[in-house]
Amino acid sequence: MTVKINTKFIQEFVETNELAALEDFVAASHKKIHDKTGAGAEYLGWLDWPSKMEEAELSRLEEAAEKVKSDTDVLIVIGIGGSYLGTKAVQDLLLPAFGAGGTEVIFAGHNISGRYLEELLSHIEGKKVALNVISKSGTTTEPAIAFRILRKWMVDAYGEEAANRIIVTTDEKEGALRKAADKAGYTSFVIPGDIGGRYSVLTSVGLLPLAVAGVDIRSLLEGAALAESTLANPALMENDAYLYAAYRQILNSRGYSVEVMASFEPAMAGINEWWKQLFGESEGKQGKGVFPASVIYSTDLHSMGQYLQDGRRMLFETMVSFTEDQNQTEIPFDEEDGDGLNYLVEKSLHEVNQTAMEATALAHAEGGVPILSLEVPKLDAQHAGYLLYFFMKACAMSAYLSGVNPFDQPGVEQYKQNMFELLGKPGYEK
Amino acid sequence: MTVKINTKFIQEFVETNELAALEDFVAASHKKIHDKTGAGAEYLGWLDWPSKMEEAELSRLEEAAEKVKSDTDVLIVIGIGGSYLGTKAVQDLLLPAFGAGGTEVIFAGHNISGRYLEELLSHIEGKKVALNVISKSGTTTEPAIAFRILRKWMVDAYGEEAANRIIVTTDEKEGALRKAADKAGYTSFVIPGDIGGRYSVLTSVGLLPLAVAGVDIRSLLEGAALAESTLANPALMENDAYLYAAYRQILNSRGYSVEVMASFEPAMAGINEWWKQLFGESEGKQGKGVFPASVIYSTDLHSMGQYLQDGRRMLFETMVSFTEDQNQTEIPFDEEDGDGLNYLVEKSLHEVNQTAMEATALAHAEGGVPILSLEVPKLDAQHAGYLLYFFMKACAMSAYLSGVNPFDQPGVEQYKQNMFELLGKPGYEK
Repeated sequence: MTVKINTKFIQEFVETNELAALEDFVAASHKKIHDKTGAGAEYLGWLDWPSKMEEAELSRLEEAAEKVKSDTDVLIVIGIGGSYLGTKAVQDLLLPAFGAGGTEVIFAGHNISGRYLEELLSHIEGKKVALNVISKSGTTTEPAIAFRILRKWMVDAYGEEAANRIIVTTDEKEGALRKAADKAGYTSFVIPGDIGGRYSVLTSVGLLPLAVAGVDIRSLLEGAALAESTLANPALMENDAYLYAAYRQILNSRGYSVEVMASFEPAMAGINEWWKQLFGESEGKQGKGVFPASVIYSTDLHSMGQYLQDGRRMLFETMVSFTEDQNQTEIPFDEEDGDGLNYLVEKSLHEVNQTAMEATALAHAEGGVPILSLEVPKLDAQHAGYLLYFFMKACAMSAYLSGVNPFDQPGVEQYKQNMFELLGKPGYEK
Repeated sequence: MTVKINTKFIQEFVETNELAALEDFVAASHKKIHDKTGAGAEYLGWLDWPSKMEEAELSRLEEAAEKVKSDTDVLIVIGIGGSYLGTKAVQDLLLPAFGAGGTEVIFAGHNISGRYLEELLSHIEGKKVALNVISKSGTTTEPAIAFRILRKWMVDAYGEEAANRIIVTTDEKEGALRKAADKAGYTSFVIPGDIGGRYSVLTSVGLLPLAVAGVDIRSLLEGAALAESTLANPALMENDAYLYAAYRQILNSRGYSVEVMASFEPAMAGINEWWKQLFGESEGKQGKGVFPASVIYSTDLHSMGQYLQDGRRMLFETMVSFTEDQNQTEIPFDEEDGDGLNYLVEKSLHEVNQTAMEATALAHAEGGVPILSLEVPKLDAQHAGYLLYFFMKACAMSAYLSGVNPFDQPGVEQYKQNMFELLGKPGYEK
């Protein structure tokens, strides 16, 4: 049940000896990761998290989630970046596209749009609401603004009872949110100090809202734990996450500077966004990095497809597909066959979709786009957990191969500094 | 009420004389567009469409929409590419983020996912459903599959009445869908023969589902008509759509080969996707074209922000903002000020959001990213219409400036050929 890289379409672009040339570098980087001796090693808590997460904490999360599910129509998750994208990604992938029933999980504090917040406020009118505020410091501007406004709404709606409907996920000891939680008696969960935002989806950051939304979080963790052991193999040729990382860097070094993450499964849209943060924020520094972009086919074959086929040749494409046919829909016979589809009548949609993928890979490869293919056996919680960990491990390796720290994000501070100056925040005046 | 380009951040990257050097080329390309003498001129029907669309057709669209609204819970729009992205874009921009009430408009036929279609079928169970099938030929694989399956569902649910719940938008005379409509007596609307998919949002393709969804389509057209007249000005320095096109090409020629469309308004997400098709499919050919990507801030400041600030320098950024503060939400005072936000108490969210944008533009410009800024006075249907036309006009100009036909998409055929071969479509066997 592991994620495999299919080299069918990349063989003509990258020779085996190019990979072999990286073996030592990969082995050294593997050692850096596992011995925690590389740049940013203090943020390697995610590495053995799936196997070491405590049962007591998991049970407490499940209890909190059950409580929310029992008395809440809408859970508002307040968070930005890694406190938002992982939950959204898994929700998109595993829950029905048109709503799962049960407690609805929506997001706030990931933008500063007054329009969005007003629409959210009108959406929750008359409903039973709970908040899950996720922020290490509690002072990140976007979620802090949303929390201030929504906390006021909660107090107006529930009075003293509001505190029983607010769950805080934050640092164990430090920060404004920890203080607020301790003072008001909010239920609280810990963001491990050694796990950065974009590597945090498998901690309480993602697990609590996902459990509320109806995701089987134990299976998610099981899949991640399997990935943790499988991908601890130091040998490049036997470790698919490292192979993915190595191919990326080989292509990057040849001038393929944009990676297009592609899937024929629309439920992958959220994973694509999460993946962009993971790789963009980990690698996009010191003037380096593959630019991460994404498409959902076949929608985008009728949109970005033309560019992929014939545009500027600086792209490579990574296609994620799910092997097992988990659906029953077949194409019905039609006497008149006006649309000419009767040749498909004995085929399932899955078969047609997989064929469309192969056809696209062939076309784009012929058009000069190197294609990496990642095969996931099945679309379920366990495999989702595996896939998330696969990308995190690959990202750490890829960043070390390109010579940058996978775990910092110094460039994110610049806009904040400017914003504080322009808004006249005390201590930041020009 | 026109869309203006703010040159504040681009001045340090592009000198006025670089623009001036393009004036003659722009004038010649303007003539090509308006005299219909350039490549693909047979697809210039969109150019004067907003002013020439007939009142009778508009009324008929509104009547059909009213009928759907009166007896339907869910309208399923079946279409791909331009038959999907424009409607989704305007819906996202103008309707409430958490649902508008009234008839729900959802999409099918824009992917081949069995999972998606099964979730859709379970979503519509027990509801009153109508279909709007949009396809020029009626044989494009993705929408044809969805229509075949959903038509069967409709016949099972409504028997002979199903025909009164199916609306077809297709070619005036030709194609499988026209034949099916004539035979079954479906209400039908025409996709003008001289307007390609990605330029079709203001025709019946977009207007019918948008009217059902609750968009004021007359205001949308009014805004587009204002753009049509305003942007008919041949002078580069007085035509903001041409200025946008010229800046893009100047930056492209300097190696800025990725354009990141950015907005601080989450409702812009759909416009970003529509814009990617418009520019990607129009310009991405013959090994040329700026690669179109997009972000929604400040979500993506905590994701792609690091890359934008410090990653490989091949990017420029186009920020779309809405000037007027149309919301009331202010940040409440908090005695304890644990989050340190009291310095924002007299500011509206809009003001903070606009400041975040300026702070980001400053930061990214300093990081070596040229910033184009497009200012839209207000977020409403009229301005949406203006903005759509603005991009279409800019795209035609930009493609001519880069020497390609803005209206064809030869590369989209390749995956289809392969797919037909692999699926054994009669006439395409290997």
